[in-house]
Amino acid sequence: MTYRFTYRRRVEFADTDVAGIMHFSNFFRFMEVTEHAFYRSMGFSVHPFRHGENDTDGPNVGWPRVHASADYRLPLHFEEEVEVELLVEEMRNKTVGYYFNFWKNPDSKEDRVIAATGRFTVVCVSFDAESRKMKAVAIPDEWRETMIAAPAELIPEPVKR
Amino acid sequence: MTYRFTYRRRVEFADTDVAGIMHFSNFFRFMEVTEHAFYRSMGFSVHPFRHGENDTDGPNVGWPRVHASADYRLPLHFEEEVEVELLVEEMRNKTVGYYFNFWKNPDSKEDRVIAATGRFTVVCVSFDAESRKMKAVAIPDEWRETMIAAPAELIPEPVKR
Amino acid sequence: MTYRFTYRRRVEFADTDVAGIMHFSNFFRFMEVTEHAFYRSMGFSVHPFRHGENDTDGPNVGWPRVHASADYRLPLHFEEEVEVELLVEEMRNKTVGYYFNFWKNPDSKEDRVIAATGRFTVVCVSFDAESRKMKAVAIPDEWRETMIAAPAELIPEPVKR
Amino acid sequence: MTYRFTYRRRVEFADTDVAGIMHFSNFFRFMEVTEHAFYRSMGFSVHPFRHGENDTDGPNVGWPRVHASADYRLPLHFEEEVEVELLVEEMRNKTVGYYFNFWKNPDSKEDRVIAATGRFTVVCVSFDAESRKMKAVAIPDEWRETMIAAPAELIPEPVKR
Repeated sequence: MTYRFTYRRRVEFADTDVAGIMHFSNFFRFMEVTEHAFYRSMGFSVHPFRHGENDTDGPNVGWPRVHASADYRLPLHFEEEVEVELLVEEMRNKTVGYYFNFWKNPDSKEDRVIAATGRFTVVCVSFDAESRKMKAVAIPDEWRETMIAAPAELIPEPVKR
Repeated sequence: MTYRFTYRRRVEFADTDVAGIMHFSNFFRFMEVTEHAFYRSMGFSVHPFRHGENDTDGPNVGWPRVHASADYRLPLHFEEEVEVELLVEEMRNKTVGYYFNFWKNPDSKEDRVIAATGRFTVVCVSFDAESRKMKAVAIPDEWRETMIAAPAELIPEPVKR
Repeated sequence: MTYRFTYRRRVEFADTDVAGIMHFSNFFRFMEVTEHAFYRSMGFSVHPFRHGENDTDGPNVGWPRVHASADYRLPLHFEEEVEVELLVEEMRNKTVGYYFNFWKNPDSKEDRVIAATGRFTVVCVSFDAESRKMKAVAIPDEWRETMIAAPAELIPEPVKR
Repeated sequence: MTYRFTYRRRVEFADTDVAGIMHFSNFFRFMEVTEHAFYRSMGFSVHPFRHGENDTDGPNVGWPRVHASADYRLPLHFEEEVEVELLVEEMRNKTVGYYFNFWKNPDSKEDRVIAATGRFTVVCVSFDAESRKMKAVAIPDEWRETMIAAPAELIPEPVKR
């Protein structure tokens, strides 16, 4: 049972903007990449449900997001390596909440610091052959037997806005 | 004094993903594009502070974000036109809060509906010649004389997560 | 019969990079956006062939690219408006060649200048229900009756590399 | 002296489009990422020339592109790992030509196949303190002593278009 995963990624030239730092929207891409790498680490994949097929083995589910947020503290620069830490914040019947820390200078004892945090709420969906649409479904047992919510003390309360 | 601005944009091929819909991160780009068009509509521009210059007339300020969030209700598809509605949610001394509605089918009386909502908190910064860094500053009067917070009833309370 | 189309677009913050200019890859997105707007101007649309459907009226074709190139002369900056000019360079049985000019300062008599040029070769494909794959097909008459290759003198020879 | 470098990268969700495959513009991003990783592998970095500084040790040069092209043979799908192979095609006084192969199924003996090829021409620039602009300069010796053009037989002739 796991509730934590980390992924390293380098800020690429195309991730930056004229302000000289990683564009704020790309933090969301880094979070999604980490989420998908987390699934692969457990032997799962996100099913893209192309052309109506649903014919591979096992439960084919996708995970569209219904909520995404980020809070930015420090900029990330070109070629900088960042460690994205994913924590499972909450598991409900059909949704999962993720919390993310972006660790700047991940290998430094003195300078390892959080550059940004983020949250996703993702919904488990499967392809409904009749309506030819996605519909929310209960998280399959295979996933539920592998993922668990992190201890609450690892994740700060959302800021009231 | 204004607190509302709308911007139309069509979902482009490169905005979509394998799930057949606009990638969730691109909603953030649409919000930023709308924010910048809002500034242009008032005669202002975001200053990118390249090469340390700060020599144009008037108060040169930039608006990096410290918070960004989105809540997704309905997907947007390729070539669909969406109306992004910006509302000034809050003006503090150095920060502005924006609220966004994504209107799907914006020209339809029956089908005009919110596909997503979002929030930004942006900080007013100027370039400090001495430290050669950005620093938060009070929002200049020129901006303050043009923008005002929207009536509270136009903007829903944030969902408690 | 038409062989020319122009499209205006403003360089957005997310289009720029740390070098302070539009990232070179985004010129390709601007070219594609112009190509799709060209199709819409003729009453056509690119068919995304989702979920194996092919049930709308008329010939459903897509236009994946087999070649794309760009030559860069002058940078484009944040908030700058550029006019992308599309010219039909060649129409074969199953492929179309496009040539693009990026006009910087498009409204200026003195400063209107080409910032970049580009080329696409796109293939007409339709969805083959049996193989559930795309396959190249002859360009439908509806398209052929609307588009024509531009006079050769409008388009320079490719540079030999 | 080296003329070849390879870089592995997985197709991310945000790299795909509604056609279910990697968007054609992202091949250019993969090529640039490989080029920058090639520079890092030799101990070099691309200098972004922010705020007019040019104060680090050694020759500070950037490498904007004046030409970029790609030829597409096979699509790349979500989560697929691709090997991008960079070959130095040509070194002139101020410019370098790169050639790229995208290897699909890079670890398979039977199915390893080229999905796309590409070319860059990049110009060596440094920051001119007087004009506060980039200008083309001769490739510094440090780079010239490390990179060399690949044997001609490794790179096919450009297709005449």
